[in-house]
Amino acid sequence: MSVRIFITGGTFDKEYNELTGQLYFKDSHLPEMLELGRCRVAVDFRTLMMIDSLEMTDMDRELIARHCMDAEENQIIITHGTDTMADTAIILEKNVNGKTVVITGAMVPYKFGSSDGLFNLGSAMAFVQTLNPGVYVVMNGRCFHAANVRKNKQTGEFEELT
Amino acid sequence: MSVRIFITGGTFDKEYNELTGQLYFKDSHLPEMLELGRCRVAVDFRTLMMIDSLEMTDMDRELIARHCMDAEENQIIITHGTDTMADTAIILEKNVNGKTVVITGAMVPYKFGSSDGLFNLGSAMAFVQTLNPGVYVVMNGRCFHAANVRKNKQTGEFEELT
Amino acid sequence: MSVRIFITGGTFDKEYNELTGQLYFKDSHLPEMLELGRCRVAVDFRTLMMIDSLEMTDMDRELIARHCMDAEENQIIITHGTDTMADTAIILEKNVNGKTVVITGAMVPYKFGSSDGLFNLGSAMAFVQTLNPGVYVVMNGRCFHAANVRKNKQTGEFEELT
Amino acid sequence: MSVRIFITGGTFDKEYNELTGQLYFKDSHLPEMLELGRCRVAVDFRTLMMIDSLEMTDMDRELIARHCMDAEENQIIITHGTDTMADTAIILEKNVNGKTVVITGAMVPYKFGSSDGLFNLGSAMAFVQTLNPGVYVVMNGRCFHAANVRKNKQTGEFEELT
Repeated sequence: MSVRIFITGGTFDKEYNELTGQLYFKDSHLPEMLELGRCRVAVDFRTLMMIDSLEMTDMDRELIARHCMDAEENQIIITHGTDTMADTAIILEKNVNGKTVVITGAMVPYKFGSSDGLFNLGSAMAFVQTLNPGVYVVMNGRCFHAANVRKNKQTGEFEELT
Repeated sequence: MSVRIFITGGTFDKEYNELTGQLYFKDSHLPEMLELGRCRVAVDFRTLMMIDSLEMTDMDRELIARHCMDAEENQIIITHGTDTMADTAIILEKNVNGKTVVITGAMVPYKFGSSDGLFNLGSAMAFVQTLNPGVYVVMNGRCFHAANVRKNKQTGEFEELT
Repeated sequence: MSVRIFITGGTFDKEYNELTGQLYFKDSHLPEMLELGRCRVAVDFRTLMMIDSLEMTDMDRELIARHCMDAEENQIIITHGTDTMADTAIILEKNVNGKTVVITGAMVPYKFGSSDGLFNLGSAMAFVQTLNPGVYVVMNGRCFHAANVRKNKQTGEFEELT
Repeated sequence: MSVRIFITGGTFDKEYNELTGQLYFKDSHLPEMLELGRCRVAVDFRTLMMIDSLEMTDMDRELIARHCMDAEENQIIITHGTDTMADTAIILEKNVNGKTVVITGAMVPYKFGSSDGLFNLGSAMAFVQTLNPGVYVVMNGRCFHAANVRKNKQTGEFEELT
């Protein structure tokens, strides 16, 4: 039994374009991160999109949901921008049944020294193997239920609604 | 409810002494790593020893076990050298009841660019919150039962005995 | 005899704001970089401004020139955004006499893994101690005269005009 | 006109063997470091040996001297362990004429986060292009004449004899 990883972009995968001075997306760093973590869980990954989560539409979210349902695996990690993680979680909650879906990301791009990305990926990998079916957001070493999470824009941390 | 972390040393916390060219132990990097991971799980940590796990004696292991039993917390992470993780796991399994104990570490010191430490710490933090009481080794994104794990010296990876 | 360093901002000192996802300026990383390089040249540094060099005006450049002339030191390093380094060099060339002035910077922020900043600072420190009075741009391990340098926008490299 | 780089090993190029927990030599990181520094000076490099400088014999030093004399280039950088840099400098001083030879290295391996290697390489690249013929040790952002330098074992810094 392996874990399926869907890549959607987000801060996680942003890079610095040294010619323009802008942040942009190139390839995902996920394979490199799994290698760094010496991860030996069987995984399959696929890039569904490579966008800032502020630009993610409901159509994008339905596409993600469909991929979750169509996947053979029952354990799914989604890398995602932090700004709209909670929105995606709600849509997946409605559309994906019988699977453990963990959404994670990073506050700082993996390629920058101070990134939380590797820690979050380690957490996500563990939570996806142990949690009951359902949709979760995994950030800050914690796991939140889809319907009960928001990003606190002031602190950059995730917290329960209630 | 918070997580208790006991620090025992191991590769995880080794540093390079630039005057002697030797690897050595100074302070633990655990606080820095939790900060980097933006971890918001309540934790308390204490350094029990700062040694290479090849030098760890059964008396050391009993000390660790006693601290696990005496701790108020039921969720405990132990950072540990990889070489004798499995030995410590067996002794803890015999002596610690009703608690979830996760032993983790790193193949490469945290301070060196290519360390798996942050990934492992993320995994350990998630597994300790979700696994049933028992003693586990967490490495390579995986979780192993105390009685069924060994480090493969050829590959540096952890695997089941059977 | 010590080296004077004037900080003006540029990519060198940009950081990632994890709440907004934007690059911004906070404090200069220069002290940290000199420490990392175990630099034992006596230096004094002062931040004159903290701006993107595309926003630098001629008034800013005259301010830099005045500080160069007023400084007690005859060896001066200026950290600067790469886009208008050559423009500043020309104005300094006209206004600063009898001193060795080296302008340097980075293509990628120091805080991001792949920065050339530390290499450039090492080069600048060496060139400023050895070159005859004049104004120079130091990038790519090379040293260019003020009147004969441009940044190639396609490659991101510095080259002679002729 | 290009710069010749001879690699002899030293802390600079040490790596961490995650199976044995020992430091060891594999390949030189020099090409990677020049790329990181976006160095556009024409260089040719060759590995002469890959050893700890405490193990370097006078025969090794004569080999290095011969390569310096035989090289077409008049600007030569030698990467070298810090412990016996001064000894090698004296032998090269006696045997190499009419060339600018710069010996440099690092207190901490390049692959470890806190290395001074990139800074030193940047300095060495600049000094070798600007100094008069002679043999020099370049560390700590400074340049020392072959006959007037020692490593202070207490501080790890280089200093003049007199």
